[in-house]
This record gives sequence, C-alpha cells and structure tokens, in this order.
Amino acid sequence: MVRGNISAIIIFCILYIQFLTFANHNQNPMNEIEKFNQYRGEMNEKILGANNKIIKRIFNLDTNTFAEGALDVKTKEMIGLACSMVLRCEDCIKYHLETVHKLGVNKEEVFEIFSIANLIGGTIVIPELRRAVEYWELLENQDQ
Amino acid sequence: MVRGNISAIIIFCILYIQFLTFANHNQNPMNEIEKFNQYRGEMNEKILGANNKIIKRIFNLDTNTFAEGALDVKTKEMIGLACSMVLRCEDCIKYHLETVHKLGVNKEEVFEIFSIANLIGGTIVIPELRRAVEYWELLENQDQ
Amino acid sequence: MVRGNISAIIIFCILYIQFLTFANHNQNPMNEIEKFNQYRGEMNEKILGANNKIIKRIFNLDTNTFAEGALDVKTKEMIGLACSMVLRCEDCIKYHLETVHKLGVNKEEVFEIFSIANLIGGTIVIPELRRAVEYWELLENQDQ
Amino acid sequence: MVRGNISAIIIFCILYIQFLTFANHNQNPMNEIEKFNQYRGEMNEKILGANNKIIKRIFNLDTNTFAEGALDVKTKEMIGLACSMVLRCEDCIKYHLETVHKLGVNKEEVFEIFSIANLIGGTIVIPELRRAVEYWELLENQDQ
Amino acid sequence: MVRGNISAIIIFCILYIQFLTFANHNQNPMNEIEKFNQYRGEMNEKILGANNKIIKRIFNLDTNTFAEGALDVKTKEMIGLACSMVLRCEDCIKYHLETVHKLGVNKEEVFEIFSIANLIGGTIVIPELRRAVEYWELLENQDQ
Amino acid sequence: MVRGNISAIIIFCILYIQFLTFANHNQNPMNEIEKFNQYRGEMNEKILGANNKIIKRIFNLDTNTFAEGALDVKTKEMIGLACSMVLRCEDCIKYHLETVHKLGVNKEEVFEIFSIANLIGGTIVIPELRRAVEYWELLENQDQ
Repeated sequence: MVRGNISAIIIFCILYIQFLTFANHNQNPMNEIEKFNQYRGEMNEKILGANNKIIKRIFNLDTNTFAEGALDVKTKEMIGLACSMVLRCEDCIKYHLETVHKLGVNKEEVFEIFSIANLIGGTIVIPELRRAVEYWELLENQDQ
Repeated sequence: MVRGNISAIIIFCILYIQFLTFANHNQNPMNEIEKFNQYRGEMNEKILGANNKIIKRIFNLDTNTFAEGALDVKTKEMIGLACSMVLRCEDCIKYHLETVHKLGVNKEEVFEIFSIANLIGGTIVIPELRRAVEYWELLENQDQ
Repeated sequence: MVRGNISAIIIFCILYIQFLTFANHNQNPMNEIEKFNQYRGEMNEKILGANNKIIKRIFNLDTNTFAEGALDVKTKEMIGLACSMVLRCEDCIKYHLETVHKLGVNKEEVFEIFSIANLIGGTIVIPELRRAVEYWELLENQDQ
Repeated sequence: MVRGNISAIIIFCILYIQFLTFANHNQNPMNEIEKFNQYRGEMNEKILGANNKIIKRIFNLDTNTFAEGALDVKTKEMIGLACSMVLRCEDCIKYHLETVHKLGVNKEEVFEIFSIANLIGGTIVIPELRRAVEYWELLENQDQ
Repeated sequence: MVRGNISAIIIFCILYIQFLTFANHNQNPMNEIEKFNQYRGEMNEKILGANNKIIKRIFNLDTNTFAEGALDVKTKEMIGLACSMVLRCEDCIKYHLETVHKLGVNKEEVFEIFSIANLIGGTIVIPELRRAVEYWELLENQDQ
Repeated sequence: MVRGNISAIIIFCILYIQFLTFANHNQNPMNEIEKFNQYRGEMNEKILGANNKIIKRIFNLDTNTFAEGALDVKTKEMIGLACSMVLRCEDCIKYHLETVHKLGVNKEEVFEIFSIANLIGGTIVIPELRRAVEYWELLENQDQ
C-alpha cells in the first residue's frame, strides 16, 4: 500500500513538471528571446546548407552592410530598425532591437526611432510597435 | 489506503482541470476577443507610459480621426476597415471589425467592404479575409 | 516691303500661338483631366483588345464591385479612394476623386477621407495628398 | 489496495496520452500541413457561403488564372510563388509551395525562385524564406 | 528688303524645326526606349562610380541571379517581370519587359504574366499594366 | 524697311529666348530643386488652407518628430531618408536628401544609407536610388 502511493506521487511529479514546463513555454521571458534566436539559427543553417550561391551572398552582404564604415555600427543598426519597422517585418524588428540593445541604445532613443517609424509608416505600424515594446521589455528583463 | 486513494483522486482533479483550462485556451471563442483586447490595452498602456510625445500624439490623433465630422463615424470606420485590409494589418482589421460590428454594420455590408479590399488589394488579401471572417464570426457568436 | 513685314507678322503669330499652346499644356486644367482620361481610355481599349480572359474579367469585376449593393455607390467610391491613397496608386486616386466629385462629395468630406488615409498610411502618403489636392482643384475649376 | 492502484494507473494513462497529444500538436510535421489546408478549406467554405458575388468570382478567377494556357501550369505556379514571396504573403507562399512540390519542382529550382524573390524583395523577405524552407521540408518529409 | 525677308524665313525655319523636335520628343516611340536605357546606363555608371562596396555587389548579384541555372533564363526573367509588376516598380517592369521580349516571349505569354500579377496584386496594378502594355507596343514597333 | 527688319529681329529674340527657357526647363539643375520645393510649398499651403484639423496636426507632428531629442537631428534625418527609400517615396527621398545635405552628411555617408536601404528593400529600390543619386548631384552642383 505504501509502495503503491509512493509510485503514485512519483508519477504525479514527473507528469506535473512536464505539464508546467509546456504550459509556461509562452510566459517565460528568457524563452521568447532564446526561441527566436534558436529558430533563426536553425533555419539559417538549413538555408545556407542548400548551397544556393545567390542566397549565400545575400546573407553575406547582410553582415557587411551593417559593419563599421563612414557611418558607425550604432547608427546603421538604428536605421535598420526603423526600416524594418516601416516595412512591418516583425523578425527583422526583433533582430535589430536586440542589436541596438546590445549596442547600448537606451529606451528613450529606441522610442524616438519608433516615433519616426510610426509617423512615416502610419498607424498600421502600431501593431508592430506593440510587439516591439514587448520584445524590448524582454531584453531589458534579461539584463537583470 | 482509502485515505491514500482519496488524496490521489483530489490531485488528479486539480491537475486535470488545470490541464484542460490550458488546452482549451485556444478553442474558446470569447477568449480570442478578450485576449486580443487585453493585449492591446496592456501594450498601449506601456507605450503611452514611455512618455514619447510624438507617439502619444499619434495615438491621440487616431481617436480624433474617426470621430464624427463631415463624414459619420460608421462611414469612417468602414473606410478604416477597408484600408487596414488592403494594407494587410491584421490587428487593425480586428480592431475596425469590432467597431463596425458595434456600430451595427451587418454581415452583407461587411462582405461588400471585404470585396472592395480584395479587388483593389488582390488575392494576397485573401489570407486576411479568412482571419477577418473568422473574427467576424466570433463577434457574432458573442452576441448570442 | 510692307507685304514682306505683314507676312512676317502673320507667321510670328501662328508660330507664337502654337508655342504657347504647347507651353501651357501643363497649366491648362481641362487638359490635365482630359489627358488622363484619354490615356486611360486608349490603353484600356488596347488591354481588352488583347483578349486575355482573366484581365477582361478583372476589368469587369472592377465595374461590378462599385455598383449599388448593401452599401451605396457613394460609400463604396469613398472606400475605393481611401484604399487607393494608402496604397499610393496615383491613377487610382485620380479615378476615384473624379467619381466621388461627380457623386457630390464635397471638399470637407474629401479632406476627411484624405485625413484617414494619411493617418493610417503615414506621411509617405503626403506626396499623393499633394497631387490629389491639385487634381481636386482641377475638378472644381472644371465646374465653373 | 490493488484495485486502487490499478484505477490510478488507468487515469494516469488517459491523462498522460491526452497531455502528449496536445503537447506534440506543434511538433508533428504532418499536422502542420493538414492543419493549414483544413483551416483554408473551412474558411473558404464560410467565405463562399456568404454568397458575395464579387468574392466568389475572385476565388473563381484565382483557379482559372493558374490553369494551362500560353504558359504551362508549372511556370505559372512558380511565378505565383515568387510573387507571394516578394509580397510576403505567408499563406500564399505555403499554398504555392505545395503546388510546385506536387508539380515536381525540385529543391534546387525552388531555391532559385527563393533567390530571385530575396534579391528583388530584399532582406525583409528572409523571415518568409525561413518559414518557406521549413514548410518545404515538411512537404519533403511527407513524401517518405 | 528681299535679303531681309529671306533671312527672316531662314530664322523661322531653324526656330520652327527646333520647336517641333522638342514638341515631338514624347511621341517618338524609338526615343522612349532609348531614353529609358540611356538614363539607366548613365545613372548606373554614376552609382557604381561612387565605389560603395555593398551597392556594387547588389548590382553584381542582380546579374548573377538571372543567369542560367536550375531554371532557364526565360523562366527567371518572366518571374522577375511578374514580381516587378506586383511590387509596382515601373522601371523594373520596363527592364524585364525588354529582356523577355528579346528572349522571344510572345504577346499572349506576356499577357498571361500580366494576368497573374493583376490577380495577385489587385487592381492597383492596372496603372502599371497600362504603362507596360504601352511599353510592350514600343518594343514590338521597334522590331518592324 | 530697316525699321521693319529691326523689329523683326527683336521679336525673334524675345520669342527665341522664351522658347529656349521652356525647352531647357528640364536640363537646368537649379530649376529641378527650385521647382520641387516651390510645388511642395504651394501645395502644402493649399492643404493647410483647407483647415482639416487632423491633416494640420499630422503636418505639425512631422516637424516635431525630426526635432532634436534623445537622438540628434542628423541621425533622425538619416533614418527618415532610409525609411523613405525602402518605402520608395520619391518626394520624401528628395526632401530628406536636401536636409541631410544641409546638415553636412557627405557623399560616402549618403551612399551607406543608400546601401542599407537597397539591401533591406531589395532591387526594386534601385530606380529610386538612380533618382536619388541624380538629385544628390544637383544638390552638390548647387553648392558650387
């Protein structure tokens, strides 16, 4: 009888932990950023693995375009963020948000970039703004 | 022994209810509308909380633009819905669908707006049309 | 000698008038509207003349979509104008401007449509707004 | 006591299977394609069921446009895929990917279409490229 | 006196011919194609002359993307034409129209590409269709 | 007789100068910039004169958005230029080109902005690039 209940409790725990892990998958801030980058990484590998010369060079150009030049990296990344926003490219926004955050762009500066994008691109940019602000918060929480 | 099984059943129930609540989260019609509006509300608060003067004024303009004027609110909202559709702004479509539904625009009228948007914007608007029709149904179910 | 100068003056006049006619080609209000509609008409004829079944049916649909239905023609044309504006389709804007003008939409109403399009589509719509206001003026001048 | 544990194990199994079914919902390749097509089918039915003459004809035109003509179906579908990609219409991409896959377009050919779309449409097309490559893989796995 | 009038007539002629040359500048078919290509050539030279590594590589990629590969040049150019059309890039349309014309694509095939672009991109593509048909005619006239 | 020919010559000259002025209207660099700004100024006046509260506030916001803030004016204007370019808003590009030129952005920096816009927005941005480079040259010529 005791043996029966012990085994019951053990299975409970396994089952319960598994359930929570899955249930929390969408609430956990860290996971959102990790998941996004993991997916990007995995797919980029598959894309480059297909060995299409043109696509490989476009990916390569992407890296070079944002490298230090007559304009500094920070300025270029802020430009990239604004362009991604007016074009409503959600993944591009997340990517550039992460970079400008790493480069030390602060909340006030990011919101000025958002304001330019929203003025030029109109209110259809607002849904992207919401998701951008949500992602920016995750990036800030990650710092703590 | 009896005590052991009773506690077992109780934990089952708690666990089971928790699981179903989570599993159904995506099936429940009411929730879809609530979730959309809750997310919008929360994020808008955060956006306005950032105190960027420009963005605050754009949000403010948004309210004023659709206010009664030379054109009535209903006409303006129908125009807003059609514009959101040709620009394929899903959240904008949902928002305006909800407003025109509240303003008493009927299904036949909504589908004529959809038809104009699909003709002008082309078949790339059809995926938005599917989601719009799905959301419209949720709004109608909500009435019952 | 007199005869010589007279003939000179006559040729002057013919030449000068011809020159001015051409020079004013872009200032003359009537011409702008006429030219636009003439070009549309000629090209549509050539397009339909090519006998592509799909394109013919798209042109046919275009006519039917804006016909009286659950929504009246005026509302539909105003929706068409706003959609053309946020999509920055200059010829579409001119076409719908002419229709709403014929349907008796007044300047204040047209500007409210413009304001919705500019808010939703952003400041990139302003260049289209300038040309739309210019064309609206030509339509009003035409009335006098 | 034995009876108690047996009933416990049974409930475990039911609960556990149910949990896994739900948890795996997003991992199972087959499901992704099925789910996409099922949703499309259901919504199209509702859309056509609304009996809007214009929308019905647009859906009808969609079928005819990609029918054999001066250009063969395969070429037309490849054109449709590229256009969907530069316009970043995710559902349209999935739909045309499925069709070209059925028509025997191979991976190398599909990647050349992707490369054209990415060059013309720019790096904002890359997120769509990732999802397209993911979906293409599901279609290939489906064959085995 | 006679000398006076003769010189008058001579100056008239010079002036008149000069005037007509200018006035006809927009009617002459050959000129339209020549002017377009001359402008493209001159500006491309200036752009590449600025020695921006990224832009030079994008121009270089452009050439390679449409080279023979798993897909033949003709198919790639037809895809390029359709993409340019749904994106309403007028100069891109003209460029690809010229290439497909050189590659022997006939009028019926071109109109099927147009029909796909107009269905997918909607009626906002029609103004581009008009100009494309006009340019196609110039290309055909050039052959005679 | 002499008097007759003298008057003839005088009228020739007036007529000839007038003709050339008009004919050169499109070659003269100064004129292009002046014409653009004059048209913008005149139309903006008419737009604001229509007294639509929303549009007036959008125009007002436009000025405030690019004012010194957490980000300096130069950075904001470069962001505005890049956004205008990926959105292919020709007049917006010209306007921001003029501002960055006044703010001392040099050719190398401008071309790096162009390169970002062309990478993100794709080769459909190239026609805008051509016109931007042409306009940039006019601005530089204006300095001499």
